[in-house]
Amino acid sequence: MKDLRIGIDLGGTQVKLGIFQGEVLVDKWEISTRREDNGSHILGDITDSIENRLKAKNINKEKILGAGIGVPGPVDEKGVVHGCVNLGWGVFSIEEELSGLLAIPVKAGNDANVAALGELWQGGGRGYRDMVMITLGTGVGGGIILDGKIRAGVHGAAGEIGHMPVVYDETEVCNCGKKGCLEQVASATGIVRTATKLLKNSERASALRTIESFTAKDVFDEAKKGDAIASEAVEKLGEYLGIAAAHIACVIDPEIFVIGGGVSKAGEVLIHMVGKYYKEKAFKGSREAVFALATLGNDAGIYGAARLL
Amino acid sequence: MKDLRIGIDLGGTQVKLGIFQGEVLVDKWEISTRREDNGSHILGDITDSIENRLKAKNINKEKILGAGIGVPGPVDEKGVVHGCVNLGWGVFSIEEELSGLLAIPVKAGNDANVAALGELWQGGGRGYRDMVMITLGTGVGGGIILDGKIRAGVHGAAGEIGHMPVVYDETEVCNCGKKGCLEQVASATGIVRTATKLLKNSERASALRTIESFTAKDVFDEAKKGDAIASEAVEKLGEYLGIAAAHIACVIDPEIFVIGGGVSKAGEVLIHMVGKYYKEKAFKGSREAVFALATLGNDAGIYGAARLL
Repeated sequence: MKDLRIGIDLGGTQVKLGIFQGEVLVDKWEISTRREDNGSHILGDITDSIENRLKAKNINKEKILGAGIGVPGPVDEKGVVHGCVNLGWGVFSIEEELSGLLAIPVKAGNDANVAALGELWQGGGRGYRDMVMITLGTGVGGGIILDGKIRAGVHGAAGEIGHMPVVYDETEVCNCGKKGCLEQVASATGIVRTATKLLKNSERASALRTIESFTAKDVFDEAKKGDAIASEAVEKLGEYLGIAAAHIACVIDPEIFVIGGGVSKAGEVLIHMVGKYYKEKAFKGSREAVFALATLGNDAGIYGAARLL
Repeated sequence: MKDLRIGIDLGGTQVKLGIFQGEVLVDKWEISTRREDNGSHILGDITDSIENRLKAKNINKEKILGAGIGVPGPVDEKGVVHGCVNLGWGVFSIEEELSGLLAIPVKAGNDANVAALGELWQGGGRGYRDMVMITLGTGVGGGIILDGKIRAGVHGAAGEIGHMPVVYDETEVCNCGKKGCLEQVASATGIVRTATKLLKNSERASALRTIESFTAKDVFDEAKKGDAIASEAVEKLGEYLGIAAAHIACVIDPEIFVIGGGVSKAGEVLIHMVGKYYKEKAFKGSREAVFALATLGNDAGIYGAARLL
């Protein structure tokens, strides 16, 4: 019986791999991502690593239903990658190529969408079918799951929550080339930027002034202790995230928002803050949407990849 | 052979009805909506009218595949209406009840969503599968079609484009109870309100000062002639619509935005204005989305209703 699935989370520096038996992650390991030569070694490396692991574990390939892979770039519904700048990849069918190498069926998706699917399957969104995942890391990513399936978008750009134009008075330019993206205020770098600006424009005392190059975690920690500047930066993040979530609800009216990524380690204070502004800004029909923390951490990608099959 | 379908567009004052043979609207008529007694006569009236029409036209009921109905309120995916304030209706399965009366299969949806489906089938969105309909009338309505199907939302509130919180400095309250909704600046009443404010806060000459209680059409007409105040009001509508469309694209990344409703009679100038701001605010991946005018006018509802089957 084919009861095993392989989940692959391909990142810019590391590839995470996992073997699932039904819902259970029974093995997991990592390899480096070899980006040289336009990333032409990556799929071969993944194949070798899986073959070796199966041999070492004495697992017969006949027992494997297939492999899923999350890719750091747009992937269309036919499993074609449309360029991964980080990896040096152009346009090609990763499903065909990796399936040819591994000799098992392969399904692929964008990494943020795949992580969202993982959280829906066994994480913060478990038991729901219509979920929005918001990942607050160095940037802000997102994934939209409707009726249990990833919404990739016509140009692979659905769930690009981080580039919602929420800030009207922004003067600096986002990585994407626009001004005023959610990512500029709600990411780890965004909240540090906000706090830095607040410190510059005021004489108020703040514990942040005593920390050399403070982090997003420092801002949340000081806010929890009552620091006024840190609290203001957290409020601003919460307000813009709440506005963005209210916009999202007017479009697709989901059941649940799941918030993950490094910044989400701030915990319930973040959920509370976003939920407060959401209730204020959201249309009444959608006001009861749930806000929850992601629970799978860095494993969300391999869970979601395995779930693609 | 069952090759006929009935489309019903139930409004607060009139019910529009149509008979379709394949893609062709072969007959259409209207009756009044009797709202007395909590709207309890409405479905009976619709049934009688259809039965009489079929008799008069000598159409055998065996030829009818079924009827679709658009309802002015939230309808879930099981065909249950969740209250229509305008009609005095509570919660009940309109599909079951109307199907029992007509003795043919019935499918129901929210009227804005159903009109969107009509435009996708044979209107401005023909040939597309992922479409956002924005209806600019007295208020601002919307409908989301993903992969050819209506996205109703978990609470029936998907496509509530008019209540996206886009205006941050709004001081007046929207009909929905919030402040700063798209509807407050992008509807027929919204653009009149914007122009009225601009006239009040400035001494500038404007043809609008010579028109007693001017309309949205007057504002567009004067803007076309170069009136500065009218142009500013049109720009503001275009800017906020462009921002809203950019938000929508970050969420679902559609192929096309179709703009309908009374205000859309302004024509290509409106499409141009919204498209200009959209290109500026949208994430690069979605920037090529198409903007088009709706083409079915008041018939969109019966087209979409027939298409529900």
